[in-house]
Amino acid sequence: MQAGDVVRHVVLFKFKDAATPEQVRAIEEAFAALPGKIEGIKDFEWGTDVSKRNMAEGYTHCFVVTFPDEDALDEYLPHPAHQELVALLGPQLDKVLVIDFHPRR
Amino acid sequence: MQAGDVVRHVVLFKFKDAATPEQVRAIEEAFAALPGKIEGIKDFEWGTDVSKRNMAEGYTHCFVVTFPDEDALDEYLPHPAHQELVALLGPQLDKVLVIDFHPRR
Repeated sequence: MQAGDVVRHVVLFKFKDAATPEQVRAIEEAFAALPGKIEGIKDFEWGTDVSKRNMAEGYTHCFVVTFPDEDALDEYLPHPAHQELVALLGPQLDKVLVIDFHPRR
Repeated sequence: MQAGDVVRHVVLFKFKDAATPEQVRAIEEAFAALPGKIEGIKDFEWGTDVSKRNMAEGYTHCFVVTFPDEDALDEYLPHPAHQELVALLGPQLDKVLVIDFHPRR
């Protein structure tokens, strides 16, 4: 795999018990607004856990942000629109997991 | 979201330190062979972590298996080909995380 390949940036959130549904919704909406603000995002999708097997370690939200290459991911992370999301998110977050991979079949 | 919607089945693996590269490769190949054996799999991709930020909690592998609906996911889990993978995988696995979601944008 080369640094020039497409990257999937997979982000899992578990919110604090104290986070209200309104606060969680605002974060979901802010995240979903990023593709309109950051040119390097090639694809974006997200959803909440529907598994019946309780193997998500408490994570409830999964976001998959796709970039054309690792450079675009590196530019995304410090982007002001992403940093705004991080600032909105931080106080409500219990934990976060991030894994980035070059998709193959 | 309805039960009839497409489901992304996201699976993260962390292998035991004792797992050899050959054992890990055999598991990667067995997983990648499932779409050819299980009709309900609509799409499949996977990769290993390339993040520079060390936020993956030790998980090294991410597999995303797509099903047309939750029923197809429910049929996949007990499928003999999937159970063979589980049996191959189990002894080498340190931990696993699974989150299933209906993708929206």
